[in-house]
Amino acid sequence: MAMDAEARPMIKRFNLSWKGPLNPRLPMMLYVGKHKKSVINLITSGECSRFMVDHIGTQPAVLSTHLAIDTLSPDIIINPGTAGGFIKANASVGDVYLGHPQVCYHDRRINLPGFKEYGIGHYPTYQSDIIAEKMNLKTGVVTSGSSLDYTPHDLEIMSSYDGIVKDMEAASVAWVAQLYNIPFIAIKAITDLIDGNSPTEEEFLKNLRLASEMLCEKTFQLVDYLTTGE
Amino acid sequence: MAMDAEARPMIKRFNLSWKGPLNPRLPMMLYVGKHKKSVINLITSGECSRFMVDHIGTQPAVLSTHLAIDTLSPDIIINPGTAGGFIKANASVGDVYLGHPQVCYHDRRINLPGFKEYGIGHYPTYQSDIIAEKMNLKTGVVTSGSSLDYTPHDLEIMSSYDGIVKDMEAASVAWVAQLYNIPFIAIKAITDLIDGNSPTEEEFLKNLRLASEMLCEKTFQLVDYLTTGE
Repeated sequence: MAMDAEARPMIKRFNLSWKGPLNPRLPMMLYVGKHKKSVINLITSGECSRFMVDHIGTQPAVLSTHLAIDTLSPDIIINPGTAGGFIKANASVGDVYLGHPQVCYHDRRINLPGFKEYGIGHYPTYQSDIIAEKMNLKTGVVTSGSSLDYTPHDLEIMSSYDGIVKDMEAASVAWVAQLYNIPFIAIKAITDLIDGNSPTEEEFLKNLRLASEMLCEKTFQLVDYLTTGE
Repeated sequence: MAMDAEARPMIKRFNLSWKGPLNPRLPMMLYVGKHKKSVINLITSGECSRFMVDHIGTQPAVLSTHLAIDTLSPDIIINPGTAGGFIKANASVGDVYLGHPQVCYHDRRINLPGFKEYGIGHYPTYQSDIIAEKMNLKTGVVTSGSSLDYTPHDLEIMSSYDGIVKDMEAASVAWVAQLYNIPFIAIKAITDLIDGNSPTEEEFLKNLRLASEMLCEKTFQLVDYLTTGE
């Protein structure tokens, strides 16, 4: 997870213990616990010591995911987080989506022979149709970029693959999971409506807590389902 | 280095041997050799096995740099590469710049309290003024983003910190180097002129070979300078 504020309800709900940095020289933090027969490792991207903010975004997410896999050898990678949604896709603040059938990047425009689709990425999600139906979750393509806002060009690219859940990490987590051939799930709670009237940053801050609570509840159910198959 | 084509002249010039992947489960490749008393490790980001293209961009650069540091404990990190320049800053195709005094991101717009400057990054470069003077190199702020092209908004952000050398990796390499507190140098050869009349992708492909040769020669001189202090 990228932000400490997003992770807090989850740490409490799963009763996780803080284990310190995942690597002593790096800022990513590890929290560990159990749910039934499964070990739960929660990683946050940690704080930037220069600007004193959470390491949000696509680049830290690469490092977090690699460290998680290299250190912990997980069976599955879940990327829970908050995201923007679209009114035109019937999203409301607090909705929780399962990324399906893929996650993509909307801000890697590389118009060189062969590089266009590499830039978009098209990373598959694990059993997202089956899980979403069982859990009664909305589904959609999660689309990641390095900015909180978006440009008209970003929106054009998103619509080329029906991207309807906009975040800042999922595609990076998915890319690293795919390099290691580990199943990947993105679960995202909506904080703001991209095609609504309020500025993203205002809506995001206003709804972060509510969305994080919804995210926590649904992620708990997801982990329970993955652990027990029920 | 991001692209195999950029690395080829360098592998030859330094007489490096291919050692296979830096990590057996990941695509990043390692080439090793010696220059006088220094060990030279050259890492390329490797090929994407799905789209059969080089892993260019800011996300793979994070993983390459982390693996390099974690595996090889380098004294200094150099990121050589090709880049776009600006006619308005007197750049010509084939010019080689030393990043100075910082490298930044131009496509991480995060308008949340405290996050704006974190998004830009402002990573310092090692002794770049001294080295550029000794080596008679042009200098400028290197500005990185995840796209080969740019938007009007990108240009606005670049000009806020006088970014005049546009690439797709330097800021990510610099970020990881900074996390580990390792000196960082960016050296970039110009393939295309951003404020010129030709499309970036055409110019890039036309000039990639020439620029890679220029880059190789200057990087060789840089390594020689760092090794001998002359």
